[in-house]
Amino acid sequence: MLKVSIAPDGREYPLPTEEENAQERELLKKITDEQRALGRKIVAVQGLGFVGCVMASVVADATDKDGKPIYFVHGHQRASKRSFWKVPVINTGVPPVSSSDPEVPEIFHRTVVEKKNFRATSEDSVYSLVDVVVVDIQLDATKPAFGQAEKGYCDITAFREGIRMLGQHIRPECLVLVETTVPPGTCEKVVKPILEEEFTKRGIDIVSNPPLVAHSYERVMPGAKYVSSIRDFWRVFSGVNHRSIEMCREFLSNVLDVENFPLTQLDSTNASELSKTMENSYRATNIALTLEWARFAEQIGVDIFKVRDAIRKRKGTHDNLLRPSLGVGGYCLTKDPVLANWAMGALFGVEGQLSMAINSVNINDTMPLHTIEIIKREYKELKNLKIAVLGVSYLENVGDTRHSPSKTLVEFLRKDLAVVRAHDPYVEHWDELEEVTVEKDIAGTLEDADVVILAVGHNQYKNLEPKALVEMSKKRPMIVDCSNFLSDETINKYKGLGCIVRGVGKGHIV
Amino acid sequence: MLKVSIAPDGREYPLPTEEENAQERELLKKITDEQRALGRKIVAVQGLGFVGCVMASVVADATDKDGKPIYFVHGHQRASKRSFWKVPVINTGVPPVSSSDPEVPEIFHRTVVEKKNFRATSEDSVYSLVDVVVVDIQLDATKPAFGQAEKGYCDITAFREGIRMLGQHIRPECLVLVETTVPPGTCEKVVKPILEEEFTKRGIDIVSNPPLVAHSYERVMPGAKYVSSIRDFWRVFSGVNHRSIEMCREFLSNVLDVENFPLTQLDSTNASELSKTMENSYRATNIALTLEWARFAEQIGVDIFKVRDAIRKRKGTHDNLLRPSLGVGGYCLTKDPVLANWAMGALFGVEGQLSMAINSVNINDTMPLHTIEIIKREYKELKNLKIAVLGVSYLENVGDTRHSPSKTLVEFLRKDLAVVRAHDPYVEHWDELEEVTVEKDIAGTLEDADVVILAVGHNQYKNLEPKALVEMSKKRPMIVDCSNFLSDETINKYKGLGCIVRGVGKGHIV
Repeated sequence: MLKVSIAPDGREYPLPTEEENAQERELLKKITDEQRALGRKIVAVQGLGFVGCVMASVVADATDKDGKPIYFVHGHQRASKRSFWKVPVINTGVPPVSSSDPEVPEIFHRTVVEKKNFRATSEDSVYSLVDVVVVDIQLDATKPAFGQAEKGYCDITAFREGIRMLGQHIRPECLVLVETTVPPGTCEKVVKPILEEEFTKRGIDIVSNPPLVAHSYERVMPGAKYVSSIRDFWRVFSGVNHRSIEMCREFLSNVLDVENFPLTQLDSTNASELSKTMENSYRATNIALTLEWARFAEQIGVDIFKVRDAIRKRKGTHDNLLRPSLGVGGYCLTKDPVLANWAMGALFGVEGQLSMAINSVNINDTMPLHTIEIIKREYKELKNLKIAVLGVSYLENVGDTRHSPSKTLVEFLRKDLAVVRAHDPYVEHWDELEEVTVEKDIAGTLEDADVVILAVGHNQYKNLEPKALVEMSKKRPMIVDCSNFLSDETINKYKGLGCIVRGVGKGHIV
Repeated sequence: MLKVSIAPDGREYPLPTEEENAQERELLKKITDEQRALGRKIVAVQGLGFVGCVMASVVADATDKDGKPIYFVHGHQRASKRSFWKVPVINTGVPPVSSSDPEVPEIFHRTVVEKKNFRATSEDSVYSLVDVVVVDIQLDATKPAFGQAEKGYCDITAFREGIRMLGQHIRPECLVLVETTVPPGTCEKVVKPILEEEFTKRGIDIVSNPPLVAHSYERVMPGAKYVSSIRDFWRVFSGVNHRSIEMCREFLSNVLDVENFPLTQLDSTNASELSKTMENSYRATNIALTLEWARFAEQIGVDIFKVRDAIRKRKGTHDNLLRPSLGVGGYCLTKDPVLANWAMGALFGVEGQLSMAINSVNINDTMPLHTIEIIKREYKELKNLKIAVLGVSYLENVGDTRHSPSKTLVEFLRKDLAVVRAHDPYVEHWDELEEVTVEKDIAGTLEDADVVILAVGHNQYKNLEPKALVEMSKKRPMIVDCSNFLSDETINKYKGLGCIVRGVGKGHIV
């Protein structure tokens, strides 16, 4: 049976055969030689996930002062059933991610088809040909027990294998720039020793040729400015030695808008790695705080969102205060505190916990249960209750479902034997909760619903007229507003139509 | 024996006799009548503490569009041995607080001596004469166990008595504006019922004359802009009914710079009270987070302050991130989370805890122990170790010692039998730790010191030349920098002189 990789659109791509791989190796050498002859440096991006694929296109899109490409980029993705399809898709000039950012298809077409300086491959030997590797291997935290992030850890097996592969192929003078968010200490304690080990096996003297390892973290945001959030934003970086730092600075300066967003250099990769995880822990802590106060506000008739606005008037000292919601999703705030907390013991042998950050992950992970509590104040029994969940992505007006709090919400509602229908205009397929169909027809989703949960602030939901929603539901459903999506005026319209309206942190409407 | 109240300068003021009180009552009536004849409204400020005394002067200083005073202000301070001295002192035009803000003596002199529309009294009957009472009674949290803020509570006995006194005297149309930071719910559940009870006893119909109660919180900062921080800054307010809200808005608009710092009205006093305590809990949480990461940074060679700067580059989302230090002091961050957490159960019967806020108080209260840990990494035994603590106030370049973390530091160092000398150029007398003399002579403080703790960032300490310090100590003392007061250059100078230098969050210097 032929091994195939199936793209999200259903198209099948057979994994390459040994013969095809051999041809590819020759082709890679030929292309690389041609590109070097054009005066371009050669870059590989390792891992074509959410960050890697766009980063690769941004590197390819970088030009010198004459408007000519500085780099040729080999995007590398392993030939796995899950992801190989990205290679042939990218090579037609099509992005392997869907996004509301119009720049995404443009930059892929421009670099792959027009400039022809971005190409994807699954062939490992590509690393022997390049000057810079940008490491964008996915690395998640594992949280074995719900609401107990203190037990979380980071399985770095696949990451180590990826780095080992680099050590087996790269030239000693190649810069390995880790862009993946990693546990603090990873460059010094994982990446560098593996490269040294593999260099030594290859007979490379690591005293005269110490591995060149740098770390720089992105601050990508899905949505309408996806590409720009990678290219046009402040970066922090460092390296394991002077040469790594200087090569990293040069590379980032060529690729990013460092004129408007100057680079920040830190003293060590430990510092840069710590900075990223602390940055996101700060946000996670901030959100966790708001949930506890939202609960209090609900009990004493206070609108926590108006309180938040009042506090945020103190610009520069209080305007970072975030908002309570259904919960916290995405790929950063849910895992970065865990990576750091795990690294303390596992990579440094340091005792203790990052308790503020870890508690915040626990509060945030279990936050969706609070929305269920709000429903239970009105309905003691959820069994057979028809509940429409509007929004399954983790961010408004974006189709990204990674670690979405709607998943926890739906899972726990179903545990209570509620009948759940989920809707999202941006999500085709809920990868993380395959047994739930994501409806596209809002009327069908709402029909006969006893409870409607406004889980995510997609514009479509915010703009729903109360009269229209009630008509579609053919009932007077309870409306649950998870993060201040409804104005007081809209809430009063719902109340006028006979609906009970409740919301996270919205004590004033009870 | 005559009862006397002793001012900080040692001068003694006898408490008023019954006869003097009777005279004062007549005088108050006469003055008030004269002032009303000038078209001025009459205000009383209840409690001439840190906020009250300056607020009183700010109210007196307010003028109409013709530059004429709008209000006459009676500052009221109970005739206690501890505080009565403030009354005669203020009435000579001298502020009862010391401050680096030159506006403090100016505004007292201007209002008391020149405009003659601010006068202090200890006579309770003053409240029967006024249109507005601004309540500035001190109200602290009690934390019966160190590092267990969850057991904290708020003893509101004295506050209730103060409000009851108002209920016994004020005219029904008098606005009671609570400026004290109170547990959420206090205006609705404590102030209003007490006033209703006292009104009813006095035969006032509370249906046609409901008590007028408002809440507005200040955001005062000690230091060079003390007066301005009360007058020229954003305010949040609300009231228990429409009339209270409108009277409060008018009063604050007359007194504060609302043109540059517009008022924010919230829906209820619950909301306004919650807002203040949440605002400070946000700061407390933020600081607690940094300590845990500072500890981590110390262990892995990272300078947490450079990391903080890198993170804060993300303006608008990350620039509120605070810094680790010796600990957290002052009158707000140390108690406000406790007030709110206590109010949940005690005033509203709501279960649960504000765990993020409470944990942060615990981390912050015990933070000084971390500085001791840093010393113990070098000296296992503190017994007989000579330790100079530079700075005992809670804020740099300010002499305010309320809840200063230096107190915890010194207490625990003494428990370990270290020989502690404390120095502070701004503090005359350490009220909270009377057994410790605050030295004024830096050379004497440093002489023979084994360890010098830079506890507070007073300019005098930041500007100390390493060579001068080492000469004064006549040793090569260990230098402990509690919050990045020393540049890397200065640290290297200390190291060059043979000193060990360590610091909170400064892993890169180890």
